Amino acid sequence: MNEKISIGLLGLGTVGSGVVRIIENHQQELKHHVGSAVYIEKILVKDASKQRTVEIDEQLLTENPEDILSNPNIDVVVEVMGGTNGAKDYIIQALKNKKHVVTANKDLMAMYGAELLTVASENGCDLFYEASVAGGIPIIRSLVEGLSSDRITKMIGIVNGTTNYILTKMSNEGSSYEDVLQEAQDLGYAESDPTADVEGLDAARKMAILGTLGFSMNIALEDVSVQGISNVTEEDLEYAKQLGYRMKLVGIAKRDEGKVEISVQPSLLPKNHPLASVNDVFNAVYVYGEAVGETMFYGPGAGSLPTATAVVSDMITVMKNMRLGVNGRSALPPLYEKKLKTDEEILSKYFMRLHVEDKAGAFAAITSLFSGNNVSFEKLLQMPIKNKDLAEVVIVTHKTNKRTYEHIHSCLRDLDVVKDVMSSYRIEGVSYDE
Amino acid sequence: MNEKISIGLLGLGTVGSGVVRIIENHQQELKHHVGSAVYIEKILVKDASKQRTVEIDEQLLTENPEDILSNPNIDVVVEVMGGTNGAKDYIIQALKNKKHVVTANKDLMAMYGAELLTVASENGCDLFYEASVAGGIPIIRSLVEGLSSDRITKMIGIVNGTTNYILTKMSNEGSSYEDVLQEAQDLGYAESDPTADVEGLDAARKMAILGTLGFSMNIALEDVSVQGISNVTEEDLEYAKQLGYRMKLVGIAKRDEGKVEISVQPSLLPKNHPLASVNDVFNAVYVYGEAVGETMFYGPGAGSLPTATAVVSDMITVMKNMRLGVNGRSALPPLYEKKLKTDEEILSKYFMRLHVEDKAGAFAAITSLFSGNNVSFEKLLQMPIKNKDLAEVVIVTHKTNKRTYEHIHSCLRDLDVVKDVMSSYRIEGVSYDE
Repeated sequence: MNEKISIGLLGLGTVGSGVVRIIENHQQELKHHVGSAVYIEKILVKDASKQRTVEIDEQLLTENPEDILSNPNIDVVVEVMGGTNGAKDYIIQALKNKKHVVTANKDLMAMYGAELLTVASENGCDLFYEASVAGGIPIIRSLVEGLSSDRITKMIGIVNGTTNYILTKMSNEGSSYEDVLQEAQDLGYAESDPTADVEGLDAARKMAILGTLGFSMNIALEDVSVQGISNVTEEDLEYAKQLGYRMKLVGIAKRDEGKVEISVQPSLLPKNHPLASVNDVFNAVYVYGEAVGETMFYGPGAGSLPTATAVVSDMITVMKNMRLGVNGRSALPPLYEKKLKTDEEILSKYFMRLHVEDKAGAFAAITSLFSGNNVSFEKLLQMPIKNKDLAEVVIVTHKTNKRTYEHIHSCLRDLDVVKDVMSSYRIEGVSYDE
Repeated sequence: MNEKISIGLLGLGTVGSGVVRIIENHQQELKHHVGSAVYIEKILVKDASKQRTVEIDEQLLTENPEDILSNPNIDVVVEVMGGTNGAKDYIIQALKNKKHVVTANKDLMAMYGAELLTVASENGCDLFYEASVAGGIPIIRSLVEGLSSDRITKMIGIVNGTTNYILTKMSNEGSSYEDVLQEAQDLGYAESDPTADVEGLDAARKMAILGTLGFSMNIALEDVSVQGISNVTEEDLEYAKQLGYRMKLVGIAKRDEGKVEISVQPSLLPKNHPLASVNDVFNAVYVYGEAVGETMFYGPGAGSLPTATAVVSDMITVMKNMRLGVNGRSALPPLYEKKLKTDEEILSKYFMRLHVEDKAGAFAAITSLFSGNNVSFEKLLQMPIKNKDLAEVVIVTHKTNKRTYEHIHSCLRDLDVVKDVMSSYRIEGVSYDE
């Protein structure tokens, strides 16, 4: 066993600075866990002369990746630089040089996870990525180890803090999407280009990772159907509340008889669902297993120290494995061949809001379209819209399949009496056996 | 590596039956994780001729513990019989015979955990006990591995399903403790002798285990101060709601500057606290770490299959360790010497309900007692009690220490104008820096 373990850090941004602080502040605990001293040997940065928020010995900084990737003193490489191209090449080179890797990079793991895990395994190295999903929540460990005895059939994740903050604020204050987004940007909760967050892509990456692990199937990013929150209105949130729901941007991953569906979209959850009270920038993943039933894992989804906690916990596992000489043995290849559900097999209840001409027969035309497709209503609201010859109609359907629902949706747009389909959302977290 | 792994089961009650079912139903997944077939070789029962709810080959049943403890074919002993004396001897014998042990026994681990872990380590064996706390929630793993990089400063646990069911039902329906307890017994949620649950002892055992792991200190059951829910009234629950709180039986474990406090008592939580919406028989553990901040782990705290999930996940870890040849290496002795807070160091806000004589000067006597001890009020309600010359007074204090509060409490009883101190609860889950 080494007397000390040396870390090479790729990146010194938000997460990297957190990693430096935790390693400095928790030396005693680290030594207790790992059995040897842990310290940072080198840190790759773009500009070594830049001012830093974290106090750091300048000798540690380098602008040359080879100082880490080919450094014979370094045992573990921690990738917290983000992005895909550079990071991927660096990680592969580190693994080929027999260095273990810990990464917080969800883009990379969602797109190249299987390939990178294979390279790690071929080189007898660990590759861990707990921080890539839901920041400080140890969800990957819980799926892979804590619930390893069970067959997971459903995961619903609030895995993007920015959108959860926006929807919480819109719902509590009745504000518009645009106003709250601006506020979130001012507070640093949303980036100046918020597309990846608000359009659901960030959540989709995390769901691809969770789906792969939870269902033991190689889920690709392209398998996740994605819709963001930029069209959600304050009216939708108000109706959702009136009907006893809360709106959240959720990733939904379900398995039925060996076939899976994975998607990200704004959805309604019953207000007493465990996820319904997950607010602001918090993340949570609801996991349903055949044997265990309902569980939920809640915590901070981002931030310097929370995410760094996950990174350093992974480092501890790597270092324990080094002590025992068992690195590179923990990642299992998927057990099942990927089988995606067809649209006929994707079942859900739906919320729909329409603007309809306020005249005789209008309502009959709509109801006959639904009933002709064997879709029945669970709830219905209709009220006149002031100063217009229009009525607002809100429909909550019973369970139907995605194909039928989309067919009805497109037929509604063709009906003369329907002025517009204003919005439409899945309703999740309800039992269909009720 | 063995071609098959043989399990010996001590006990075939609720949890044991669940273990049998999961092993039968998840053979393919188990083989994938473990790399070899897993089967049950022998099951110790009190009466082999008894009718069982689970279908079982009668050849597997034995009434002789030696058929398991000294059976050379058996690799892993799973103790799900409960109780302490017999179970302790069996586990020690199994470990000395170099058999790994998985147990769901919270009584045993709370009382003899340190001793048993030492025996396991001396014999190069694993001893895991995830199922002993919060049933199907992988909380032990999350503390020991997922948050291993962090310094945990607070754990608040709803770790007893029976009492959570009773308090939820009392709060929702305004029913009395006695009525709801009877109902819980009829439904099988409470035992015919409910003492260990309702008086907080079961929760105390689990908090001793969580405290030991989370704070890396040898916490004994005697270190946990315990108060149950049998004196909670519907009036208390109603006032709690009015003031924006929810009442829960919680275990509280806090660490400040190296000193800890551990207790179990009915307490008020702000209604927007993550634990406040944990209802019915569900369990949840809220964990605060210096770096990660707020996290929560939610799920079923009891039940055959949920608890068995935790047992079988532990078995999988044992069997993976067998494949790698690294058993008996994972349990770390506590890093810190145990230091308990004094009553002066235990800080909290309190809720108190009094019956006071409805006459001039009564209120002044009470307020001067509090202010004389430097305790100020955050909230105050006073209203007359019908048909009596009494007023009901409800006080929410600002932060104070336990010693001062208990001093005030006993002085109040001596005041002439105070007819009775009806109830008194800690208020938890609030920030004291507000």
